[in-house]
Amino acid sequence: MQLLDGKNTAQTILNELKLGVAQRAAAGKKIPHLAAILVGNNGASQTYVNSKVKTCNQIGFISTLIQYEEDISEVKLLEKIEELNEDYSVDGILVQLPLPAHISEKKVIEAIAVQKDVDGFHPENMGRLIMGEEEAFIPATPYGIMLLLEHYNIQTKGKHAVVLGRSHIVGRPMSILLSNNTQPGNCTVTVCHSKTQNLKDVCLQADIIVAAIGQPEFLKADMVKEGAVVIDVGITRLPDASKKSGYRLVGDVDFANVAPKCSYITPVPGGVGPMTIAALMKNTYKSCTQKD
Amino acid sequence: MQLLDGKNTAQTILNELKLGVAQRAAAGKKIPHLAAILVGNNGASQTYVNSKVKTCNQIGFISTLIQYEEDISEVKLLEKIEELNEDYSVDGILVQLPLPAHISEKKVIEAIAVQKDVDGFHPENMGRLIMGEEEAFIPATPYGIMLLLEHYNIQTKGKHAVVLGRSHIVGRPMSILLSNNTQPGNCTVTVCHSKTQNLKDVCLQADIIVAAIGQPEFLKADMVKEGAVVIDVGITRLPDASKKSGYRLVGDVDFANVAPKCSYITPVPGGVGPMTIAALMKNTYKSCTQKD
Repeated sequence: MQLLDGKNTAQTILNELKLGVAQRAAAGKKIPHLAAILVGNNGASQTYVNSKVKTCNQIGFISTLIQYEEDISEVKLLEKIEELNEDYSVDGILVQLPLPAHISEKKVIEAIAVQKDVDGFHPENMGRLIMGEEEAFIPATPYGIMLLLEHYNIQTKGKHAVVLGRSHIVGRPMSILLSNNTQPGNCTVTVCHSKTQNLKDVCLQADIIVAAIGQPEFLKADMVKEGAVVIDVGITRLPDASKKSGYRLVGDVDFANVAPKCSYITPVPGGVGPMTIAALMKNTYKSCTQKD
Repeated sequence: MQLLDGKNTAQTILNELKLGVAQRAAAGKKIPHLAAILVGNNGASQTYVNSKVKTCNQIGFISTLIQYEEDISEVKLLEKIEELNEDYSVDGILVQLPLPAHISEKKVIEAIAVQKDVDGFHPENMGRLIMGEEEAFIPATPYGIMLLLEHYNIQTKGKHAVVLGRSHIVGRPMSILLSNNTQPGNCTVTVCHSKTQNLKDVCLQADIIVAAIGQPEFLKADMVKEGAVVIDVGITRLPDASKKSGYRLVGDVDFANVAPKCSYITPVPGGVGPMTIAALMKNTYKSCTQKD
């Protein structure tokens, strides 16, 4: 069993980007600039946004963090996005989800200019993904997973991939990317969800499993074939008095029991999480270079 | 075995639309208007466009058929689309594919206003499909298949659907629709393609098979489970001297041998084809009523 080390792989990608930024700076070219909007004070959201901003700083990107109180109006948020859309200096805009209930996530996502939608959640970017268009921004989590498979040179052609989850943020784009005519890709892909029957039987056929359902330790050892590649997208905070933070992070995979059966598996934390941030940075870099 | 009669089902839908148009006319409301563009003189394309225009006439839609020679420039075609985009009277625009090699299909598809893209090929409509948004125009062929499953009240929840083909026009949107949280829908969906291994084994697990690969009589009886529902999207013209037209239409399914094993199966012709046109008309009608 080999760990798919997302932390190290992300660092390799970030180093490449850092070098790219330095070269751009030396050539007098535009430096990538990510603007992140955080609404309210959800602990997990704050952690995610902070680590994105921190990563920007590490690799020489410009970052702008815009924070609003929980009760900001939808109109005001949309106005800010419009302002960022029109600001040439900004290459990427991300609004950390989830948003408070009085704000429409759909409206907010669609307000972001397609060319600056580095999270890849705008319907036009989703559509370009289906159509296999290279200028699309791929949603950061599935993109990060593809980069991880690529980094470890995992051969996916003709393999059977099972994706647990059909969200438009992870499950669906993941299933499209894995079945595209690319490497990684060219998998036979099965998408499972809460209505799937005989889930265990389906999972047992998988050469590659991507678990993205948000249920801690859902995927058990008896659902996994010997030698499978397992990618764990889940990340749930479970209360844990023994930890200083008061919680521990748990994935969708029962790691302790599943790992021994796998050829490769991602840990939680340190697997998909850092890759998501690296992918977001790659998207922001791409957005910037598209202006050259 | 029961035939999924696309011809009759389409007629039922068209009758409903015809009634709707008559009611709109009586109320002084806008009548749906479809503009179709045909480039060159490909026989199949001409047949398809003609039957779309004929259907418009049957149900009281206004139709405009714009025909160009094979050598029309891309610029001129794009100008025409822009003109139709700005023409309030036009609700739906379709450009019959394929286009000659000197014209970019991508450019042409993306030039069509999202609100008039009744073929549902624009990336923004594709993306809205992934996101399950109701205002999206669903590509006509997969939409027609969903309408057919709905008409025959085929229960799909928890069933295993296998989609053969990953094109963005049929295979991919079909797989998304079948796995959505809807009825029909809520299937566990596997997408297969040319790189799939053990295709026969995968197909034998399917409760529902959608064949959309464009290879005549590809799906054989030994690939189909007893009682499966088989949807045949393929339509190929094979030379046949015994026919007046000189050809016969063949699907992707070896109908004669597969049909006896099925609970339901679509014939070719008279299955998915007429449903595609009915779905296109429904999209055009929807576009018109969205202006109310």
